[in-house]
Amino acid sequence: MTQNASSAVTRMLQTHPQIGQSPFDMNALTECIEACFECAQVCTSCADACLGETEHAGHLTHCIRLNLDCADICTTTGRVLVRQTQPDMGVIRAQLQACLAACKACGDECQQHAEKMDMKHCAVCAESCRRCEQACQKMLGGLSA
Amino acid sequence: MTQNASSAVTRMLQTHPQIGQSPFDMNALTECIEACFECAQVCTSCADACLGETEHAGHLTHCIRLNLDCADICTTTGRVLVRQTQPDMGVIRAQLQACLAACKACGDECQQHAEKMDMKHCAVCAESCRRCEQACQKMLGGLSA
Amino acid sequence: MTQNASSAVTRMLQTHPQIGQSPFDMNALTECIEACFECAQVCTSCADACLGETEHAGHLTHCIRLNLDCADICTTTGRVLVRQTQPDMGVIRAQLQACLAACKACGDECQQHAEKMDMKHCAVCAESCRRCEQACQKMLGGLSA
Amino acid sequence: MTQNASSAVTRMLQTHPQIGQSPFDMNALTECIEACFECAQVCTSCADACLGETEHAGHLTHCIRLNLDCADICTTTGRVLVRQTQPDMGVIRAQLQACLAACKACGDECQQHAEKMDMKHCAVCAESCRRCEQACQKMLGGLSA
Repeated sequence: MTQNASSAVTRMLQTHPQIGQSPFDMNALTECIEACFECAQVCTSCADACLGETEHAGHLTHCIRLNLDCADICTTTGRVLVRQTQPDMGVIRAQLQACLAACKACGDECQQHAEKMDMKHCAVCAESCRRCEQACQKMLGGLSA
Repeated sequence: MTQNASSAVTRMLQTHPQIGQSPFDMNALTECIEACFECAQVCTSCADACLGETEHAGHLTHCIRLNLDCADICTTTGRVLVRQTQPDMGVIRAQLQACLAACKACGDECQQHAEKMDMKHCAVCAESCRRCEQACQKMLGGLSA
Repeated sequence: MTQNASSAVTRMLQTHPQIGQSPFDMNALTECIEACFECAQVCTSCADACLGETEHAGHLTHCIRLNLDCADICTTTGRVLVRQTQPDMGVIRAQLQACLAACKACGDECQQHAEKMDMKHCAVCAESCRRCEQACQKMLGGLSA
Repeated sequence: MTQNASSAVTRMLQTHPQIGQSPFDMNALTECIEACFECAQVCTSCADACLGETEHAGHLTHCIRLNLDCADICTTTGRVLVRQTQPDMGVIRAQLQACLAACKACGDECQQHAEKMDMKHCAVCAESCRRCEQACQKMLGGLSA
């Protein structure tokens, strides 16, 4: 995958029959879709890694719970955004706001565990959550403009 | 399942170790969880039924798209609500608002096809969307009280 | 919902435009779809209830992991089965076998915790897993006939 | 993301507390996880692109249906594989087989539309399906060894 100038999702958007009517900025959209799906994978993995921290799992209960919520919310947001045929802007805006809230809450929690307990998977996860939070914020900014 | 006075989800909530600390009204919560999961199934089915309307599928494009969004959003909302361990109220509120928006948009669209094209699956779907929209509204009302 | 003789999913299948060509026995299909979606909800809840068992969560790691797998697999199997437009029998058969394996593994694990640790949510979950396992088995039996 | 030598998922696996006990070949596992999640995104997009082909959507009904199944199955398979804490090999094997069947069916269908109708999104999708099918095959080969 390393030598591809464009990701598979980018190529899908470029070949979509209704992409010409898209109300979205293509760069912001592509970045947000990729951030959502990456965050969904990383949060699924972080919930599992926290569960596998046999000595610390008790302190990671809230983190696991937020990871599971964030994984589900990011998956759904990515799917809604990837669909370009006749979008409903009210639904998209509300789902982006939910995604932003989930990534903020999960990123804050993971960052704490990265800093205080040196949880390296939480450090990677906090980074993906921040990236997704910012991508959602940027998309929302573009929509209300 | 016919002779059970209580659904499986009700029994799960009743036996949850942290249900005593739940910030939610149990009746509203149970109703909302069941409405979300029912709506997710019905919207998945309505997208497929619309796709199978060989003579009318062209007129049902927007309906299919909204059904797919609504199915994903309701599944995720149901999963977030079913989790009772250390909930984040900001995430829950935002996801409920996204679910309300999706059910409103999808319910409006399906109701039109039920009335104008006599699409009976859209009539069933509109009913599930309304029920879920109202259950989300009721939950949101309880949270801000 | 109590006075409805038929569930929303039943009514959706009855109004589906291609239900006349369905290769499935309608009773077995309806039962399997409902069992898959119920099991998905219950496993999502059981993973969360186990996570909330603050004194026992360490012993429930394998249970949580199987619950999460089973919830995802049952959701996907229910969605695949609910679609009646031009099904691919090879895909359906393979997904039913995965669902059967997940419900068997998760049901066995939950039953142990129900019996040895008196985990009441695991008892409810084991019951939903068994019901879904049997419904998948019945569907698979009908397909190979 | 371009300058990262390793993807976020790779870094998550490397920092997982139980990765030392993993029964999987790390290269095959990482490749399969990435292929599953890419295919899930691409199939979600291809279903929507086919739906947006206003003049041809009638010929793409089977393609849309297979895309939706494949998107759900690949998402679930990716989630199951990403979890490294106490895996159940029977569940993983069965889910990999379902994923292989879905990618094969969807890849075959998309390739036809790419060749006969010059559907460029189907060409991209067929490629992702093939990559995922092969990655699942490789994982299954490693498990039975």
